[in-house]
Amino acid sequence: MPQAPATTTEQDTIRILVSTDNHVGYGERDPIRKDDSWRTFDEIMQIAKTHDVDMVLLGGDLFHDNKPSRKSMYQVIQSLRKNCLGMKPCELEFLSDPQEVFGGSTDFVNYQDPDINISIPVFSIHGNHDDPSGDGHYCSLDLLQAAGLVNYFGRVPEADNIHVKPVLLQKGETKLALYGLSNVRDERMHRTFRDNKVHFYRPGQQKNDFFNLLTLHQNHYAHTPTSYVSENMLPEFMDLVIWGHEHECLVDPIKNDITNFHVIQPGSSIATSLVDGEAVTKQVAILNITGRRFTVDKIPLKTVRPFVTREVVLATDKRFKGLEKKQDNRQEVTKRLMIIVEEMILEAHALWESTHGGDVAEDEEAPLPLIRLKVEYTAPEGSKFDVENPQRFSNRFASRVANQNDVVYFYRKKTAVTRKIPNDAKELREGVAEALESVDTIKVDTLVQEYFAQQSLKILPQAPFGDAVNQFVNKDDKHAVEMFLLESLSTQVKGLLQLDDEKVSDDLEAQIEEYRKVMEKDFVIGQHKQAQRRRRFKPKPDSWDSDVDGHWHARPEALEELAASPPQAASKSRGGARPTSGVVFSDEDEMLEEEPVATEPKRSARGTRKTAAVPTKKAAPAKKAAAPAKKATAPKKAPTRGLKKPNPFEDSEGEEEDIIMEDDDFEPPPPSTRSTRGAAKSTRQTTLNFASQSQRPIKATQKAIEISDDEISEDDDAFETMPTNKRAKRR
Amino acid sequence: MPQAPATTTEQDTIRILVSTDNHVGYGERDPIRKDDSWRTFDEIMQIAKTHDVDMVLLGGDLFHDNKPSRKSMYQVIQSLRKNCLGMKPCELEFLSDPQEVFGGSTDFVNYQDPDINISIPVFSIHGNHDDPSGDGHYCSLDLLQAAGLVNYFGRVPEADNIHVKPVLLQKGETKLALYGLSNVRDERMHRTFRDNKVHFYRPGQQKNDFFNLLTLHQNHYAHTPTSYVSENMLPEFMDLVIWGHEHECLVDPIKNDITNFHVIQPGSSIATSLVDGEAVTKQVAILNITGRRFTVDKIPLKTVRPFVTREVVLATDKRFKGLEKKQDNRQEVTKRLMIIVEEMILEAHALWESTHGGDVAEDEEAPLPLIRLKVEYTAPEGSKFDVENPQRFSNRFASRVANQNDVVYFYRKKTAVTRKIPNDAKELREGVAEALESVDTIKVDTLVQEYFAQQSLKILPQAPFGDAVNQFVNKDDKHAVEMFLLESLSTQVKGLLQLDDEKVSDDLEAQIEEYRKVMEKDFVIGQHKQAQRRRRFKPKPDSWDSDVDGHWHARPEALEELAASPPQAASKSRGGARPTSGVVFSDEDEMLEEEPVATEPKRSARGTRKTAAVPTKKAAPAKKAAAPAKKATAPKKAPTRGLKKPNPFEDSEGEEEDIIMEDDDFEPPPPSTRSTRGAAKSTRQTTLNFASQSQRPIKATQKAIEISDDEISEDDDAFETMPTNKRAKRR
Repeated sequence: MPQAPATTTEQDTIRILVSTDNHVGYGERDPIRKDDSWRTFDEIMQIAKTHDVDMVLLGGDLFHDNKPSRKSMYQVIQSLRKNCLGMKPCELEFLSDPQEVFGGSTDFVNYQDPDINISIPVFSIHGNHDDPSGDGHYCSLDLLQAAGLVNYFGRVPEADNIHVKPVLLQKGETKLALYGLSNVRDERMHRTFRDNKVHFYRPGQQKNDFFNLLTLHQNHYAHTPTSYVSENMLPEFMDLVIWGHEHECLVDPIKNDITNFHVIQPGSSIATSLVDGEAVTKQVAILNITGRRFTVDKIPLKTVRPFVTREVVLATDKRFKGLEKKQDNRQEVTKRLMIIVEEMILEAHALWESTHGGDVAEDEEAPLPLIRLKVEYTAPEGSKFDVENPQRFSNRFASRVANQNDVVYFYRKKTAVTRKIPNDAKELREGVAEALESVDTIKVDTLVQEYFAQQSLKILPQAPFGDAVNQFVNKDDKHAVEMFLLESLSTQVKGLLQLDDEKVSDDLEAQIEEYRKVMEKDFVIGQHKQAQRRRRFKPKPDSWDSDVDGHWHARPEALEELAASPPQAASKSRGGARPTSGVVFSDEDEMLEEEPVATEPKRSARGTRKTAAVPTKKAAPAKKAAAPAKKATAPKKAPTRGLKKPNPFEDSEGEEEDIIMEDDDFEPPPPSTRSTRGAAKSTRQTTLNFASQSQRPIKATQKAIEISDDEISEDDDAFETMPTNKRAKRR
Repeated sequence: MPQAPATTTEQDTIRILVSTDNHVGYGERDPIRKDDSWRTFDEIMQIAKTHDVDMVLLGGDLFHDNKPSRKSMYQVIQSLRKNCLGMKPCELEFLSDPQEVFGGSTDFVNYQDPDINISIPVFSIHGNHDDPSGDGHYCSLDLLQAAGLVNYFGRVPEADNIHVKPVLLQKGETKLALYGLSNVRDERMHRTFRDNKVHFYRPGQQKNDFFNLLTLHQNHYAHTPTSYVSENMLPEFMDLVIWGHEHECLVDPIKNDITNFHVIQPGSSIATSLVDGEAVTKQVAILNITGRRFTVDKIPLKTVRPFVTREVVLATDKRFKGLEKKQDNRQEVTKRLMIIVEEMILEAHALWESTHGGDVAEDEEAPLPLIRLKVEYTAPEGSKFDVENPQRFSNRFASRVANQNDVVYFYRKKTAVTRKIPNDAKELREGVAEALESVDTIKVDTLVQEYFAQQSLKILPQAPFGDAVNQFVNKDDKHAVEMFLLESLSTQVKGLLQLDDEKVSDDLEAQIEEYRKVMEKDFVIGQHKQAQRRRRFKPKPDSWDSDVDGHWHARPEALEELAASPPQAASKSRGGARPTSGVVFSDEDEMLEEEPVATEPKRSARGTRKTAAVPTKKAAPAKKAAAPAKKATAPKKAPTRGLKKPNPFEDSEGEEEDIIMEDDDFEPPPPSTRSTRGAAKSTRQTTLNFASQSQRPIKATQKAIEISDDEISEDDDAFETMPTNKRAKRR
């Protein structure tokens, strides 16, 4: 990877600790592993502090559970609070509008809060485990952001129409455009990309000076043709992509020769399943970004429990040769397998020691390892490998491994079996039970889907029923089924009450069926609308003065009454209004354009571009004066406030810019607030408003964004063929 | 109430906003009332800010649910963050050891955290709704404390042996001893008081200079003889008691003529049931404490939905006279009742306007009111008041009241009915169903108790089963029943596997019964042990330097492995070690001593005492120099650090005092931490350690605290008679 040029210095290097899939709370009820997840997250945050990075970037699934236990939440808060807070000011200039990049939830990035000293800001997208759900559509990251501990960016208010606006940061001469794309169910995300409905924005000015970094949390590989995001679907202007969701740690940047960006897949910081990919050494990356170049430091995690996997095929392994022909070979097979496990335990200890080097204190014992031996025991016709009950075998290592119930996994090579469709309820139950036994993690929606494929409901609509069960199981929403039943039944009853007596006696069942179908259809439309009906804020009243009255969006009265707002009007104002008001960032929409594979490395070409762009960069030197100051060193904050920075973006007809830059340090405070607060308030840095330049013409390549109900109806056919997609809107 | 003497000034007055039972999250799924609870809590926090109080004191049940929804948590965090944080330094000197008064969870009160600017600290105890539960025994307040937003005090690690150590605060000449006693199930708390196992500590020195303020959260009135705390059980040295849990707002201090302290019952800030007590105007109190005197300012809450209750007895009410003799009087009764409800709605609007005075803006509409009309419709023999279905009646006011399903409550005077004991399962089910219909809130433990009174379990132990169901329902612990089943069944199976073949065939059922009984007994003992097995910390290693390495208790490695520590040894170290190491505060144990009722007001006698104590107070003037400084005004913090304050307590043989007062501002930082952090770290104020003077003899009246297993076994009989007490240890 290219090194930073000698002319740049440390002051121009943005250092970012990158980690994903911390899954805090995983295994928290396991007697041995219960503290693993949060201890490793704590180690990661300590590394951030020890290595004095500029920021931490998390790629989703910070929490394992959608509703984390109090213990998990407590430990994460503790880790953040003791490692991210401090007197050292964060050196990153924040160039975006916080309202825009943090989904209207806050008026500033956490390190610019005058009342909390953040040394190391954490930026995070959400994953599929800790995504928003329930009333108000909050997720765990919202709570951490409210407490000032995390900056939750890359939100996806509409899964079918996604606008990715970067967080713009600058340190010295290095400019960073940080893109975040929080998790959306893979099929859905795939479709949104396919439909050109993922819009990436770029700064209109100096866009070639920015290092473009994207974080996302999706399947990286094609489990099915439509349930992943291909690297090649992502915009080519990216320099680096941080890929969350996949648990295998691939921390060395891998170059994509088609798009020419690099990809880092940090992997999970805890093994959540006993597969090979999880046994790869868990590491975090520290990115050093200088100008348009970057390097990576890899730091292995020391708290991670050692994990060794192996696979043996008894029929071909020389240690088991001929055993299948002996009668009663169970004892001998078991004995030989035990020897292998013993070797693996030794290997795990060696692994631990090598990770810890000379650091291991005399009294510090290696933790019990995770051991997984996969055994294929298929034997030739007429012979047999007689294997022990896997749990009994595993229990032989009870006090010496962390996973005493699943050390071994026995399987036989499958002969091609056509999947049998169950004929009656009993077979269905057995099928489900079998499915439950045979897989580690069963998908609830698969179960629900299989169930409804056999059953047919007379009164209740199926798709919303499935959705409710999903919400209950996956999002721990204990009221989901109750609410579904109440709503569905009252719709049915209301409908039936309105019928003529004649109709009732004629064909009651047909009527019930009809209402059920109406509800099915309403659900599909409702899901689309719901995406547009998240928390929203009323417009700031004209009389509202943020300096005096506080931040509008932080006031309860600012929260829009969702029940009161007509969904259709809302749909218009979100989807339709944006293009007419114009955007500062240009929508590249280039990610789906075909481009020939370049044989020469594109990176060097970029380097040239970068050099060419230097004069542009030099044109805006005044910005440096406005570096964010910490109250400890500059308690009055006056120097940062009066300055109006030049707008680095292309057009600057700023008549409509709503940044108010009053300098009221010495003005008498308004009667309704205390004088000591006046100074603390208006410390918000100059920001750039995406919607401030309405005269800018929309690029021809930019897609229309409005979603009408018609469009959705047209899309219905596409939905019909894959009903589970519809249900999982909120996942 | 006595006024503060003219010689004291505002600088000597501690101003405390007092509120209890905010129940944030109550009714959050009600389409109309869903935002009521958090909006009112937000109003309260805004009042604290507007009135510039020194602190906020919450008396428990901040949250309605043990596991609040994300929305509730989010709103509370927002309200705290935007009202409690700010540049103005908190003027309260903190004289206690934070480790001791905050249960070892933190090294400082939140406003002394160098990295968060707290202007208005919030102190809170927990109530019965938001008490600790689940793994690690965390409660919602722990999370808020971890985030630096609340100081959670008055914790009760052992419900059978309670040590109440005050938070000592000082502002100017006023000294405040703030006692907190978080909720314990009433029967249990009653017994702990009865057994003289509630120990109140007082400062050994200048104790008569302190204003003693106690906050608790228990039944105030005798529902049953043992399910409440009597005011007369509380220590007489208190000056004021803030009583949480009761929802009726009685904010004017009421003097107890036996104990001579005053009592304020702030009541809930939201009506959680439609009873008269909840219809009393909701207010918060601002206490102004100057020396040993206090005044109260009352502030009515404006966001509270107006609520009007009335009761009519049809048989005696002149508006319904004679109607019972008419045939088919339903329509007429309904019509006349509707007129009354109309009057009540008008009354509610008048109420709203009177609370809001001229403040109501033109466009601000009064919220829909809560209306509850209680109707007794008993009629003389041979006649009848024919009342409508209550829900149908209520729905007549659907768009005009907030509680459209329960506007009216019809009841007949009960004739004495002996309670029938159900004979079979069907009757039992019916009985339970009836109970569910007839009461607003049914206690789960009552249901479980009734159920088990009829059923008998063969394999599973009953008491822990009841406890698990309780945990599941009341504490939203979805794993409680699963864990119970796993543990119970594995105990049974393990036991049975160890049996001789002979025994098995002889009397398997008897054996199963035996193991069940063993588990029942283990449960009782386990509950006692569990109380002693909360989160605990390992002792700080000798090599640990808090200034360099950070706060020991904040490190994950400090958390003791509960599984690894033998419970018995732990029991010793908690119960037994304290008396031998001695305490600085003297244990008064005076609360249960008989004292004749004084006819002359004791308050004036106290005033005299206070005057006499002035010279003592003057003897410690040096303390003022160490007023807590805010980083905004004194970023280097050096002046506050080197000073060692004189110990205001009686004895001062401080050889074992573990307060380290190094001044390392200018020492080079250790290699493992960054230089910019060194200064930020050791800002902890001089504190007084309760356990620092081991030579101090134990007072003869002080009870031994050690709980041995023997004692618990002896106590078993007392438990046997009231099994529900045992189950609810964790509530």
